[in-house]
Amino acid sequence: MSARAAAVGAVIEAGRTASIRHWVPATSGNFSVRIDAETVAITRSGVDKGDLKPADILIQPLEQPLLPGSSAEAELHTALYRKHPAIGAIFHVHSPAATVFSRLAVSTDSLTLTGWELQKALSGVKTHEAIVDVPVFANDQDIGALSRRVDARLSRAVDGAISAPGYLLAGHGLYAWGASPAEAARHLEALETLFEFELSYRRFTP
Amino acid sequence: MSARAAAVGAVIEAGRTASIRHWVPATSGNFSVRIDAETVAITRSGVDKGDLKPADILIQPLEQPLLPGSSAEAELHTALYRKHPAIGAIFHVHSPAATVFSRLAVSTDSLTLTGWELQKALSGVKTHEAIVDVPVFANDQDIGALSRRVDARLSRAVDGAISAPGYLLAGHGLYAWGASPAEAARHLEALETLFEFELSYRRFTP
Amino acid sequence: MSARAAAVGAVIEAGRTASIRHWVPATSGNFSVRIDAETVAITRSGVDKGDLKPADILIQPLEQPLLPGSSAEAELHTALYRKHPAIGAIFHVHSPAATVFSRLAVSTDSLTLTGWELQKALSGVKTHEAIVDVPVFANDQDIGALSRRVDARLSRAVDGAISAPGYLLAGHGLYAWGASPAEAARHLEALETLFEFELSYRRFTP
Amino acid sequence: MSARAAAVGAVIEAGRTASIRHWVPATSGNFSVRIDAETVAITRSGVDKGDLKPADILIQPLEQPLLPGSSAEAELHTALYRKHPAIGAIFHVHSPAATVFSRLAVSTDSLTLTGWELQKALSGVKTHEAIVDVPVFANDQDIGALSRRVDARLSRAVDGAISAPGYLLAGHGLYAWGASPAEAARHLEALETLFEFELSYRRFTP
Repeated sequence: MSARAAAVGAVIEAGRTASIRHWVPATSGNFSVRIDAETVAITRSGVDKGDLKPADILIQPLEQPLLPGSSAEAELHTALYRKHPAIGAIFHVHSPAATVFSRLAVSTDSLTLTGWELQKALSGVKTHEAIVDVPVFANDQDIGALSRRVDARLSRAVDGAISAPGYLLAGHGLYAWGASPAEAARHLEALETLFEFELSYRRFTP
Repeated sequence: MSARAAAVGAVIEAGRTASIRHWVPATSGNFSVRIDAETVAITRSGVDKGDLKPADILIQPLEQPLLPGSSAEAELHTALYRKHPAIGAIFHVHSPAATVFSRLAVSTDSLTLTGWELQKALSGVKTHEAIVDVPVFANDQDIGALSRRVDARLSRAVDGAISAPGYLLAGHGLYAWGASPAEAARHLEALETLFEFELSYRRFTP
Repeated sequence: MSARAAAVGAVIEAGRTASIRHWVPATSGNFSVRIDAETVAITRSGVDKGDLKPADILIQPLEQPLLPGSSAEAELHTALYRKHPAIGAIFHVHSPAATVFSRLAVSTDSLTLTGWELQKALSGVKTHEAIVDVPVFANDQDIGALSRRVDARLSRAVDGAISAPGYLLAGHGLYAWGASPAEAARHLEALETLFEFELSYRRFTP
Repeated sequence: MSARAAAVGAVIEAGRTASIRHWVPATSGNFSVRIDAETVAITRSGVDKGDLKPADILIQPLEQPLLPGSSAEAELHTALYRKHPAIGAIFHVHSPAATVFSRLAVSTDSLTLTGWELQKALSGVKTHEAIVDVPVFANDQDIGALSRRVDARLSRAVDGAISAPGYLLAGHGLYAWGASPAEAARHLEALETLFEFELSYRRFTP
């Protein structure tokens, strides 16, 4: 199978898995997988992510303008791929814990996770004692401006914390990535589950 | 396939999808799809919406009295179709967030949504900053009276807000519509998910 | 199909449906269907209710002692069948909203439901304005004593309220019944859903 | 079928069942089944527990060092099997109620359950009035030290309470066991469900 066919297949599978969890309600969400250094496969705007066909997936060169039919948010994907050659897949969902938590945490710019064994599912985290920093951004319909804010913040580490392979947009949801589609899927599931744990935990702790 | 057969098939599919989500418990809910300017296909009263047969669906002329076997609530459907020629499908469910929220919000006549990216799944909403107005009505066993209250309220826009393609009946659930069955399904899923987000968010905000 | 085979099949189907909802965790729950005036089909003790075989179902004469392999709780079923000839099926589950609510409500002997359209799924309820009375009993390992308390309470109507086709045992779960397996299933789903709505609603109302 | 093939099959089935419930997110969790007095079948580190292949399962002699590819936590399994010959299967999950509750309860070293009929699904519990003691341990990346703390605590009964067939690791999840894979699965489902009930109940009780 060609790298391109494999990437298209991985996008279809990622959408299907997210849809089963109800993480991409009403055609929301978008999914991309890197084909090579210059190109990614990415979902078209406005389609049902639970039942993607190959025609729903665009082959986007990273150094060219977004293709017709692109989601405006495709720019958040391509900017990350251009800046970070090790990223192989980026998945964006409107999962409930991420989406609700993003609004609760936006005033502090970060959501901090610590004390959960499941953190170790995030690449580079070796202990539940690690402090994991998940950036939170105010949502913005100006995707270019938002992408520049994301880029500036991701370039700046938080002292004593490990940066999560993902970030939150307030009231909008979660972006998560990995070196491969499998790692991005693992990071996505780990982050949403950690947000569920943390939200539930905070209901009982002042 | 005839327009009539297509409408009947779309009603069956809408019921099946809602039932999988547990949004039509115990034969509750009702679903209709427009066949043409004068006629709609609509679910019969008292049947399991998750396993509809063609015989469970009535072909109701909009300008004639409700057929034998109709749900009393069919009048809420036919009144909307008569008044709004652009409406192609109306789906009503007892989904949990909508049903609970409807009682919490009834004293204010409206549920207001803002700050959620998913709002953009509602036709006409372009930004998370939009204010979306979802009317809330006290429940009533007199469907004629209820239908007139709905009609009066939907004719009256709320300043500075976009009207949602749906409304809530207190303790009863959600009515949502769209130009086509696909759009009605997208609006239904978006609204119930937005209510889930908002309910969860309000648990943490005074 | 004989009445006996139909009853056994209905018990198997009721267990399977409840198990899919996770309402009979860890071999809990029990299910019975009336065969005729003198006999019922009822689940054996200690078996997985989600995957019942005909051999897991006992054919219990109502006027004889419980058969070997019976659940101790079978007596709660047979006492109801003897007293109420119109009851055709009784389903008992440990569903989450019923089980949690049963403990919150036990000090008041009753859980009162009003204001929900879904109440109309309960036989005899015509309006959301009806007050539905669900008796709540302290749990008891002495099933004979418990059965007598249930019988005494069910014989006593609550002024101004409609008696639900079911009751709660504190920390134990829900018993629901109907004239047929289909009606018992409808009552079971309606009651558990009403308890979910009411529990969620009470989180926001003092 | 050999005891070894049966044990491998039971591990695969346990992982699949837990994954469907979302109790082993992102390759978390581990599962083992005893083959005989000296050997167990146990999941390899870092694999998806919902889709285990025979090659993902190690045949671990209890008196030998952990095999290459083992999870560090395998030692928690082997220590329990060596000490308790009656234990036939041990399942570990990151289920949500267990994981959240483990952090809320860690300061008191124990989670106490009483008043739930479902307690009787735990081996040795005869009444809802029993007090069930579930030990809670602070999480530790030093599995040897953690295993010794577990061993010391399990050897010490709590006066007036019945010891649960399982324990919690704070922020990490649930270990549950039984004489057979079927009993371990029943205990796992009963404990997670009891934690769900108790968490929900505590939201309403001060």
